[in-house]
Amino acid sequence: MTFTGQHLIDGAWSGADTGRAEAEVEGLSVAQATEAEIDAVARAARRDFRAVAATPASTRVALLDAIAEEIDARGDAITATGVAETGLPEARVVGERGRTTGQLRMFAELIRDPGYLGNRHDPALPDRQPLPRPDLKLTKHPLGPVVVFGASNFPLAFSTAGGDTASALAAGCPVIVKGHPAHPGTTELVAQAIAAAVVRVGMPPATFQMVHGAAPAVGAGLVTHPEVAAVGFTGSLGAGRALFDLCAARPVPIPFYGELGSINPVFCLPAALAARAEAIGQGWVASLTMGAGQFCTNPGVILGIAGPDFDRMAAAAAEALAGAGAQTMLTPRICEAYGAGVAALRDRLEVLGETGPVAEGRAGRPIAFRTDGASFLVTPELHHEVFGAAGIVVACADADQMLAVAEALEGQLTATLQLDMPDDTQIAQRLMPVLTERAGRILCNGFPTGVEVAPAMMHGGPYPASTDSRATSVGTMAIDRWLRPVCYQSVPDALLGT
Amino acid sequence: MTFTGQHLIDGAWSGADTGRAEAEVEGLSVAQATEAEIDAVARAARRDFRAVAATPASTRVALLDAIAEEIDARGDAITATGVAETGLPEARVVGERGRTTGQLRMFAELIRDPGYLGNRHDPALPDRQPLPRPDLKLTKHPLGPVVVFGASNFPLAFSTAGGDTASALAAGCPVIVKGHPAHPGTTELVAQAIAAAVVRVGMPPATFQMVHGAAPAVGAGLVTHPEVAAVGFTGSLGAGRALFDLCAARPVPIPFYGELGSINPVFCLPAALAARAEAIGQGWVASLTMGAGQFCTNPGVILGIAGPDFDRMAAAAAEALAGAGAQTMLTPRICEAYGAGVAALRDRLEVLGETGPVAEGRAGRPIAFRTDGASFLVTPELHHEVFGAAGIVVACADADQMLAVAEALEGQLTATLQLDMPDDTQIAQRLMPVLTERAGRILCNGFPTGVEVAPAMMHGGPYPASTDSRATSVGTMAIDRWLRPVCYQSVPDALLGT
Repeated sequence: MTFTGQHLIDGAWSGADTGRAEAEVEGLSVAQATEAEIDAVARAARRDFRAVAATPASTRVALLDAIAEEIDARGDAITATGVAETGLPEARVVGERGRTTGQLRMFAELIRDPGYLGNRHDPALPDRQPLPRPDLKLTKHPLGPVVVFGASNFPLAFSTAGGDTASALAAGCPVIVKGHPAHPGTTELVAQAIAAAVVRVGMPPATFQMVHGAAPAVGAGLVTHPEVAAVGFTGSLGAGRALFDLCAARPVPIPFYGELGSINPVFCLPAALAARAEAIGQGWVASLTMGAGQFCTNPGVILGIAGPDFDRMAAAAAEALAGAGAQTMLTPRICEAYGAGVAALRDRLEVLGETGPVAEGRAGRPIAFRTDGASFLVTPELHHEVFGAAGIVVACADADQMLAVAEALEGQLTATLQLDMPDDTQIAQRLMPVLTERAGRILCNGFPTGVEVAPAMMHGGPYPASTDSRATSVGTMAIDRWLRPVCYQSVPDALLGT
Repeated sequence: MTFTGQHLIDGAWSGADTGRAEAEVEGLSVAQATEAEIDAVARAARRDFRAVAATPASTRVALLDAIAEEIDARGDAITATGVAETGLPEARVVGERGRTTGQLRMFAELIRDPGYLGNRHDPALPDRQPLPRPDLKLTKHPLGPVVVFGASNFPLAFSTAGGDTASALAAGCPVIVKGHPAHPGTTELVAQAIAAAVVRVGMPPATFQMVHGAAPAVGAGLVTHPEVAAVGFTGSLGAGRALFDLCAARPVPIPFYGELGSINPVFCLPAALAARAEAIGQGWVASLTMGAGQFCTNPGVILGIAGPDFDRMAAAAAEALAGAGAQTMLTPRICEAYGAGVAALRDRLEVLGETGPVAEGRAGRPIAFRTDGASFLVTPELHHEVFGAAGIVVACADADQMLAVAEALEGQLTATLQLDMPDDTQIAQRLMPVLTERAGRILCNGFPTGVEVAPAMMHGGPYPASTDSRATSVGTMAIDRWLRPVCYQSVPDALLGT
């Protein structure tokens, strides 16, 4: 396959000659969506929305399965391009491809059963006093055209054919992907796979579209277009909040599902630290440095009560870090931001362990800092995510201070407890309600990286972890984001199409 | 009971002496919440949130049932005060009281069964390859303190102990009611009932609080307070949008569930008009003038295809209107706004029927206008709600134009079809997908006023009918607005409190 850097608009590839710009990948020139092109994709998606929404579920099942097959058929090319563009290891890209096709097939399986619609029926009660009850049937209907922003850190599972796209197509919404400039070739290959599947299954041409565009105006133009009905986004707090604000300020506001920033705290309780301080320190560093720390669920902070056990944990973490080398980060810009974030932490904190310059070109090296609970509490800057493998070890004076730190945290995707029952039960019981208010997922004796794709998964959380704490972007419940209830009162079956 | 016009803050009545103002009810002076009082209610609600959230469902069942009992015990006083303040007929206030206690008992019944939490469990798969699956348990957790704005037009069912309060308490959220200045005495009596129930059941004092305040700053102060987690509102587009914007612009945005404006179109299909034009015209006027037209679901527009049948319908409507006299509207200000809205319509439209001055003091008289589909299409002002019994009869040139009008409508709470199957099937099938995109509830051969409180009800719709088309403010599903999912991964049962 030859990279073209074109948009996919209404079933046709375009933008070969006009308004191109350098991508974040060296040497690649990519089309940049114009206002007219943004208008064209939004209008085409709206034009085809009714037909897509009206497809039987079996057609959307076929589409999702066909997309997975077309991705599998291009598997080697996608892996090679993904590795070249993102710097991620091949095994990771292969794994992420499997997760991506798995998600597509999971949503296909989900919508085979109409249970996902949550249908309800209150039959008529014609003889009820003082007034009869009419027949009421509740079902769900897709929201309309959905814009999905590809994520830099998951070129497959959270990008072109990722969870947002799969769940929105499953719901019956046309999808417009804004490709991420960090992996335009991967985006193009996956878009080709989806386009082939759309043709194979005979869906309307604007069922799936994709445009490139690095300028903020492209994203802004998409989310403010009157024909767009909802947005899925995974990315930075700054960019995500700007898009959220645009969605809320529209004449007709629309849902914006943004998964933004999180420091994913790990709380080490005393008995667990006493029993396995070294294993916890090592496990934390393994999770912190996985994928150069570029996961949404990267555990940026680990806390415990100061003392010899805590020091053993910190020492083991420092030792593990010494063996962790540089990794290629997603883009030079991300590596540069990582370096700047680490520099700001260095001004405030004691270094626990480092192995060399943290950011050179695209090479990011992990680093860990140490501070105490009192300092952490009064330094809000430490509560924000630094994207990359920078971690902070926080020694709290006592259990009360650890509780106070938990209370002071912003919204999180995850919160982790390292505990040994029953000795840690009491302190864990004090932490649980605090963490439940602050996080979308609470896990024990594991690490938050590696998000299971399953019906009971919740990937989201109170702001700024996500812009809508009621929604998940991973797992089957993600389809609910693109559906709204409609009640049919005394409507003849001939009009319900069921 | 003697009216005091005080706030209920953290279990105590206050504001007897400070910062009072005239209510919209003549002769009543009501406390006006200060910044310090707003801060006090929000902080008290947050302080008690964890305890309220942790109550077993059985305690919240007892609370909801006790509130219903305390309202019943004050039934005559509530009815007398409600009638005096709102000008609504006694039968209506008695009926609304029954609906209100019915809603409280419905939510009590709902949460007896944990099914409302939508719990999910993916058991661990320790032997799965390549990686084991951890145990995942999903449940729902209340959002936090909820602010509820009393509605002018439903002094009971959408106010102090209305559907928003009942569903939020059922979910485990403390509630702060902002009393509506049009019925402060009713608000006080119902708040007394809730306060008595809170004490009886032994819930924390800030489980329920109520403040008065007519100035926009009071509502703004409540929804922008950092300790407030969500808002329920029923009212005008202008006030609702202003509050929505404040919620979205907060450092931590929160959900704002606003039910705003709707014209609730009624589409008369040809066979139905041929068969029963007169009954449709009469039925429409009965629905239009019910409660002086002050229902969210008031059918402000009726459409059909021009011709003799349509003219018979219009003539029957005009005749029915001639028999409909003046009714007392909720407040002088609402009546004045009705008069102004009608005056603006009069400048553009032909009068179909009227019986005298439309707005004098608090006396509102119904009026109907007639126009054609082409004019309606090019006059966006006709697409907005005039709160009160003003209706527009729209004669469309043909079925295509009726479809075009449907396509041009904003979001609606309801859309109604008058149809006779099978002759109207074809045109109804063309209308259905359009209306499904635009309305939360579609009904056939009835009128939209009189919203059934039931599991399959949807009372909401695309903007501006509501600010969140995924949510309903009537029926059991309303509880979902105050809950967010939390996933517990490998968390020991001892910490799950189940």
